[in-house]
Amino acid sequence: MTERIVHRRGYRKGIGGEMTAEFLGTFVLILLGVGSVAVAVVGLPGSGRQAVDFGPANWLIISWGWGLAVVFGVYVAGGISGAHLNPAVTLAFAVRRDFPWRKVLPYWVAQVVGAFVAAALVYATYRWAIDASIKKSGVPRDESLGTYSIFATFPAEYLGDSWWGPLLDQIVGTGILLLLICALIDTRNTAPMSNLHPFLIGLVVVAIGLTFGTNAGYAINPARDFGPRLFTYFEGWGSIALPGTFQWFSNYWWIPIVGPFIGGVAGVGVYDLLISPLIKARHGEAEEGPATEEP
Amino acid sequence: MTERIVHRRGYRKGIGGEMTAEFLGTFVLILLGVGSVAVAVVGLPGSGRQAVDFGPANWLIISWGWGLAVVFGVYVAGGISGAHLNPAVTLAFAVRRDFPWRKVLPYWVAQVVGAFVAAALVYATYRWAIDASIKKSGVPRDESLGTYSIFATFPAEYLGDSWWGPLLDQIVGTGILLLLICALIDTRNTAPMSNLHPFLIGLVVVAIGLTFGTNAGYAINPARDFGPRLFTYFEGWGSIALPGTFQWFSNYWWIPIVGPFIGGVAGVGVYDLLISPLIKARHGEAEEGPATEEP
Amino acid sequence: MTERIVHRRGYRKGIGGEMTAEFLGTFVLILLGVGSVAVAVVGLPGSGRQAVDFGPANWLIISWGWGLAVVFGVYVAGGISGAHLNPAVTLAFAVRRDFPWRKVLPYWVAQVVGAFVAAALVYATYRWAIDASIKKSGVPRDESLGTYSIFATFPAEYLGDSWWGPLLDQIVGTGILLLLICALIDTRNTAPMSNLHPFLIGLVVVAIGLTFGTNAGYAINPARDFGPRLFTYFEGWGSIALPGTFQWFSNYWWIPIVGPFIGGVAGVGVYDLLISPLIKARHGEAEEGPATEEP
Amino acid sequence: MTERIVHRRGYRKGIGGEMTAEFLGTFVLILLGVGSVAVAVVGLPGSGRQAVDFGPANWLIISWGWGLAVVFGVYVAGGISGAHLNPAVTLAFAVRRDFPWRKVLPYWVAQVVGAFVAAALVYATYRWAIDASIKKSGVPRDESLGTYSIFATFPAEYLGDSWWGPLLDQIVGTGILLLLICALIDTRNTAPMSNLHPFLIGLVVVAIGLTFGTNAGYAINPARDFGPRLFTYFEGWGSIALPGTFQWFSNYWWIPIVGPFIGGVAGVGVYDLLISPLIKARHGEAEEGPATEEP
Repeated sequence: MTERIVHRRGYRKGIGGEMTAEFLGTFVLILLGVGSVAVAVVGLPGSGRQAVDFGPANWLIISWGWGLAVVFGVYVAGGISGAHLNPAVTLAFAVRRDFPWRKVLPYWVAQVVGAFVAAALVYATYRWAIDASIKKSGVPRDESLGTYSIFATFPAEYLGDSWWGPLLDQIVGTGILLLLICALIDTRNTAPMSNLHPFLIGLVVVAIGLTFGTNAGYAINPARDFGPRLFTYFEGWGSIALPGTFQWFSNYWWIPIVGPFIGGVAGVGVYDLLISPLIKARHGEAEEGPATEEP
Repeated sequence: MTERIVHRRGYRKGIGGEMTAEFLGTFVLILLGVGSVAVAVVGLPGSGRQAVDFGPANWLIISWGWGLAVVFGVYVAGGISGAHLNPAVTLAFAVRRDFPWRKVLPYWVAQVVGAFVAAALVYATYRWAIDASIKKSGVPRDESLGTYSIFATFPAEYLGDSWWGPLLDQIVGTGILLLLICALIDTRNTAPMSNLHPFLIGLVVVAIGLTFGTNAGYAINPARDFGPRLFTYFEGWGSIALPGTFQWFSNYWWIPIVGPFIGGVAGVGVYDLLISPLIKARHGEAEEGPATEEP
Repeated sequence: MTERIVHRRGYRKGIGGEMTAEFLGTFVLILLGVGSVAVAVVGLPGSGRQAVDFGPANWLIISWGWGLAVVFGVYVAGGISGAHLNPAVTLAFAVRRDFPWRKVLPYWVAQVVGAFVAAALVYATYRWAIDASIKKSGVPRDESLGTYSIFATFPAEYLGDSWWGPLLDQIVGTGILLLLICALIDTRNTAPMSNLHPFLIGLVVVAIGLTFGTNAGYAINPARDFGPRLFTYFEGWGSIALPGTFQWFSNYWWIPIVGPFIGGVAGVGVYDLLISPLIKARHGEAEEGPATEEP
Repeated sequence: MTERIVHRRGYRKGIGGEMTAEFLGTFVLILLGVGSVAVAVVGLPGSGRQAVDFGPANWLIISWGWGLAVVFGVYVAGGISGAHLNPAVTLAFAVRRDFPWRKVLPYWVAQVVGAFVAAALVYATYRWAIDASIKKSGVPRDESLGTYSIFATFPAEYLGDSWWGPLLDQIVGTGILLLLICALIDTRNTAPMSNLHPFLIGLVVVAIGLTFGTNAGYAINPARDFGPRLFTYFEGWGSIALPGTFQWFSNYWWIPIVGPFIGGVAGVGVYDLLISPLIKARHGEAEEGPATEEP
């Protein structure tokens, strides 16, 4: 018994504890975020359309819902794991040398599992609404892009079958996310204090939803998309979920994974190329490269 | 006279003072929260429909209204009673050993009384609007689910007569609430400082409204639902209010009481099972259980 | 010349300086607040209806507009005059003995003048939109309640000719405002720090708009209503403005003055009756009344 | 090589570094801000109208989008360049003697280039949506005021061919912006602390959007308008973009440049005329002018 406690304490301070925090933080993120789309798509009276037809007021619900989801996911996990909650954040921080490479895969696993479990709980809570909406629309579940859209993303019809359109969208969206996270946690820049950076980071996601959300549903997070996508695949949405094939597109699933990975690294790169050296120069810190005289 | 002052001072420092603060804080919460539904349902021109038909922009009014109601209820009562304003919060904190069991019942009483009085004041202020809406709809008050919905909650029609649907919804909603409150007041985690936790706790309720609000009206607080429900029963909404019986459901009243109690304890349990031990391990604090060597 | 500077410096530290700050703060408040109604009523395409028909999305524009107006009015004047910006706040603080009676009238004058000048600037900026809207509606200006509603308030039609309905509404709304201001500036309670109380006080006004805004336009501030009302009277809205007479009501003008004065004093009274003594008891400060032994 | 590093370090501490920060901050501002109009105009299903018909919920998307764009632009550049992100801010601070005149032109160049590049990236990301919208509307691109409005501003039709209407609007809007910026960074007034002034400054722009946004699209920033305008000119919107000629107006391009310059200086002037001397008098600081005895 005592040994078991020792074991568990070691786990608490190590990667196991961080994985627990990433799991729970991502769980909160997806529970609230996916829940907000459920409210907009099947929860409110008057919703339950087959056509995926988000009006601007619905879009405000979704954008604030996902943004606040990030706020609170970060407040839950922040003190333990740093609250990445997003494989693209984890990768970008590893590339940046802020985060050890050996922890990358464990973080990714915890994030995807947290997202999957959260999707399952949203489904458990909303399954009456989803069934009623599907029944009303008269199409079978594996053709119901509307109810699927509660859980995972798909590209706008106007993008056609171009994979470059949504991929670029994901690169840009995640690039903004990481660029702004870098600024918001850089205490030598103007980072918010009093532990309000989680609030501001959540507002970044409100902003991305309001500005780059409609091309492809702003996954900007491989776990956010792939966890719930996997869940919908198991729950009968079929090829819409995996491999992500529907009327105007085939095999979409990889785009909200690859796009955010590229975009996240790019966003960190822009900050570290353009801003970090300026910050360092102003704070007189040692830089890489030969120490030389300065004016 | 002097004795009376002594008596009152004792009361001020003791449970009587805390009950006063819980009363006033819950009063503010319900006054603003219920008021926001009144604006959406009977206040705005074009409202006053018999059908309970909240559009997404109305839902934004209600979600922000209830969220800000929590913000300010907490700012009013925070310094005196800790601002539970919710019997499910009080119970969960008692179970957590953060709060003495002997104070639980007094807090509950103060919260329900505050909610009842606030409902009465909203009714006094909105009775012209309510009467006009009922007249316009052509149904008698005790069949007017629309005007009743200003005060207390009911399940969405798509949940049918299932008690598990709304009960689960209340468990999930209140579970999120307590889980996030635990994070937001845990100063060893990333809790907001500068006395901004009431603001963030209110945003939790904005988030729950936008994400788990439409299944069953997100009571997530037994006093919030039962106080105004009792008031509507006395004011002529009859069996819609108590026992909560209408077209597709019978005897609803207990669900927004039992659900939040279960969910609140569950939410605290998740935080204390998954996060609290990790926090303690990182801060090197004494834990329960035999003290053993650590790596 | 030197003497003039001396004179002006005295003025800067005295009531003249405070009046200047109240003037400018109230000017900002009304400029933004009235501007938000102008956007909703005549600015956005599709607006310009004769019928005063605020939808819920318009109501969000107005509620956030007025709330942010308060935020920034307070940030402008806070450091000089305490940023009352509202004769009901000034009166309530004087009754509370937080503010000298001799300054009450000068503050009131500055506030009303600031509101009047701001209304004039909004009119100068929006007069094309107002004229287009009036032309489109086909009624003369002195019957155009829609365009008048940009500037000052009127009661909802469902209140009929009852003066008690809107008066009670103004008492309740202003009561909430002052009760919550008292909490938000009480540093022994949970008052926000880091100079964020102006932000939270503005959110109080967002909340009141979303919860008690539609009965009578939530003036909750005699200067906010009377200054612009006077301006519209001079600009041709005639008896709609003064004495405030239209289809279903006569002589409305005094209600958004008397109601806020009563409500403001009541709100302070509730805080000082229920919360202030509890705060003092907990902080061990001297109270009025004979000092007696305490447990 | 060493010399090159020396050179670059000098650049990092000098005007080159500040220009980089202004470039990136303005890039973020325009990327998010213009993106929000893209969501409202061509992104959301049901959009894609030729008629420029912003409803109130779309307007909330745009107002919050631009406001949050400012928040994050300032957080990115704040620590390096002071985050003007707006030639009117730069000019007003120079006139105020807070900023050296020799840096004004370099800041302007960086701001306009940042805005231009951001417009190009928004276009790259939204070109499918824009093309689909133009195709649906049936008018050629150089007559498509709707898609043009994503990028730059134009006056409301009700202003007719008056240049004074939109010019006054720009003066008032930018005047408010600078007046409030002055208050929000004046630490002797009630300026927010904990590095939350970027958040509040962004809320100023939310407020201006909700209150003075619909007359002429609230450029209130010459770079915000001219950079994207130049881009649309090169991309085929023709004379709508430059010189800004369409059905009811000719040669609009100079108004969102001249108006903000005048308004910005006026806003700073109001603050420094009315508030700054009062602040100084209360803080006992040396003022210009002969030192004289004070009461």
